[in-house]
Amino acid sequence: MASPSSPSGLSEGEAVRLIESLAGGSGGDLRVGMGDDAAVLRLGSGLFCVTTDLLVEGVHFDLQFVSPQDLGHRAMAANLSDLAAMGARPGWGSLSLGLPGRPQAGFISELVKGLDGLGRTHGLRLAGGDTVSSPQVVINLCLVGAATKAGPVLRSGAREGDAVCVTGVLGSAAAGLAWLQAGRPADDPRAQPLTAAHLRPHPRVAAGLALAQSGLVHAMMDISDGLATDMARMCQASGVGALLEETRIPLAPAMSRAAKEMGADPLHWALCGGEDFELLLTCAPEDLPALARGVAEAEPGLGLTRVGTISSDEGVMLKNPQGELRDIAFTGYSHFAKEEGA
Amino acid sequence: MASPSSPSGLSEGEAVRLIESLAGGSGGDLRVGMGDDAAVLRLGSGLFCVTTDLLVEGVHFDLQFVSPQDLGHRAMAANLSDLAAMGARPGWGSLSLGLPGRPQAGFISELVKGLDGLGRTHGLRLAGGDTVSSPQVVINLCLVGAATKAGPVLRSGAREGDAVCVTGVLGSAAAGLAWLQAGRPADDPRAQPLTAAHLRPHPRVAAGLALAQSGLVHAMMDISDGLATDMARMCQASGVGALLEETRIPLAPAMSRAAKEMGADPLHWALCGGEDFELLLTCAPEDLPALARGVAEAEPGLGLTRVGTISSDEGVMLKNPQGELRDIAFTGYSHFAKEEGA
Repeated sequence: MASPSSPSGLSEGEAVRLIESLAGGSGGDLRVGMGDDAAVLRLGSGLFCVTTDLLVEGVHFDLQFVSPQDLGHRAMAANLSDLAAMGARPGWGSLSLGLPGRPQAGFISELVKGLDGLGRTHGLRLAGGDTVSSPQVVINLCLVGAATKAGPVLRSGAREGDAVCVTGVLGSAAAGLAWLQAGRPADDPRAQPLTAAHLRPHPRVAAGLALAQSGLVHAMMDISDGLATDMARMCQASGVGALLEETRIPLAPAMSRAAKEMGADPLHWALCGGEDFELLLTCAPEDLPALARGVAEAEPGLGLTRVGTISSDEGVMLKNPQGELRDIAFTGYSHFAKEEGA
Repeated sequence: MASPSSPSGLSEGEAVRLIESLAGGSGGDLRVGMGDDAAVLRLGSGLFCVTTDLLVEGVHFDLQFVSPQDLGHRAMAANLSDLAAMGARPGWGSLSLGLPGRPQAGFISELVKGLDGLGRTHGLRLAGGDTVSSPQVVINLCLVGAATKAGPVLRSGAREGDAVCVTGVLGSAAAGLAWLQAGRPADDPRAQPLTAAHLRPHPRVAAGLALAQSGLVHAMMDISDGLATDMARMCQASGVGALLEETRIPLAPAMSRAAKEMGADPLHWALCGGEDFELLLTCAPEDLPALARGVAEAEPGLGLTRVGTISSDEGVMLKNPQGELRDIAFTGYSHFAKEEGA
């Protein structure tokens, strides 16, 4: 009957917008529908956040380069990061697994150990699931978390004059991936923080909760496709623009050294690298010190760095050390070629 | 690194049990974990049921034989049926879609129309989702429904002496599938109730709610893999057996006629055919008339038929008109070859 695809078909962003136009919207107990890091809905007496992620072998991961346990960890981390971005407390999850042929017990054990181990660390329990046959490994997680009393933090609340801040350092995951793809040793101590950032990312659940509970954060989301693209998404959702300053972007020393050694641009990794899973947020500039203290209390050693300012202009401008500006909106990582970044 | 599968790997049932042993269990706010039609958990002040289903093109459906709208309808129906089996009121869902290449707008529109259309009919709203690239069409739905005040009905509550009952008629979906696979016309009026049962199944949401609200149902599940297999699952979960009577199995007249015309065994379709999505339940025999009235009120024209009795013996025995018994446990439909039916 109908073919699902054609050369003249939709981009991922167009497909998402079409689905939203058909089945999206909010109202009643559905406070926030499709489009944010997670949906927000009222169940009984509380507000809950729901997020889901589908990972397909060959598209999102390659079993030649990731161990089953790291794969499980990463799948859970990506979803927990979406809850962290709403400032929600992880509650429970539903796991769907597609497995080819007759699955190996060892493969399943390691995968589930990675998934469930990270989940339990953050208070999440797997409640149910489905296991089916599939030509490739397919992993779908759907997580639910409880919003704090201060309510979930959306990506649409950024206001002109807000300080733009990020947790942690940026680009380490991209550097780790590049390191491994170049065939360099995974256990090289110089690259260890980078390969760990790529293989076993740390979702900022505790920081996200502390930030949401403060009631001082205007907009928040996680950085999964690079600062350039995710900043543009936040600006689009908030109807604002942003001015970022190159010299303020936080880079890990190990990342800068690896970039030098590999002849790569550390700023490119920091702006356009995927899967950092740090938090991007905006707040009134005067609230930054209090929020930085809250983040450091929630996750000892974790920094909160101001990287720019929300503006009323459209776009995401980056100012280099010479004071020159360029628009970097939607120049980040995308799973799809020729993607406009939705 | 590790290969996900090998010829000596696990069956689907073994894989499911392994995952349950690693990440399953219940306790605290997780009232029922993996293993029933849906998980049951407390969120805030209420009990909720969660179900998820992963469908993969080439394994669960063939786009040559199903329209995108029917595919969407069936995916939603299978999940709503799991909520119906718990006696839960559909609330919201999360949709993950994997689509090959550049997806056609028409394909997505029809698919979502089928999905969302059936969902809204039953009060379900899609709250969020994920859309990714995938070599095949992959559909994952995760639905949440609210349990009635009487609580969710589990599959583990069957007791010796209970009447075993089913809603509607059995085998029509299998007959419809066989009709279409034989290349017979889909619009033949004689086969219309059968092809409709296969292509656009009707989840028994209203009947399931009425049954749960009665407080009289001891065990309930939906029939998705055939009465023989699903009865055996209920018996296994409840630690009992069942004696079914061939002459009591409800068959649609159109199904019996189609079987005769195609030289097929209508009883085989009724016992072993997949995806009927009727409800299988047990109750005290004296409560059957009240429950039948409740079902007919909830879904006009829908019957509730006693097909047998719960016994203390193991296994699922079928008594033929001559009074002979045979064990039919786990002889139903399975997505996997050599499946032991978990």
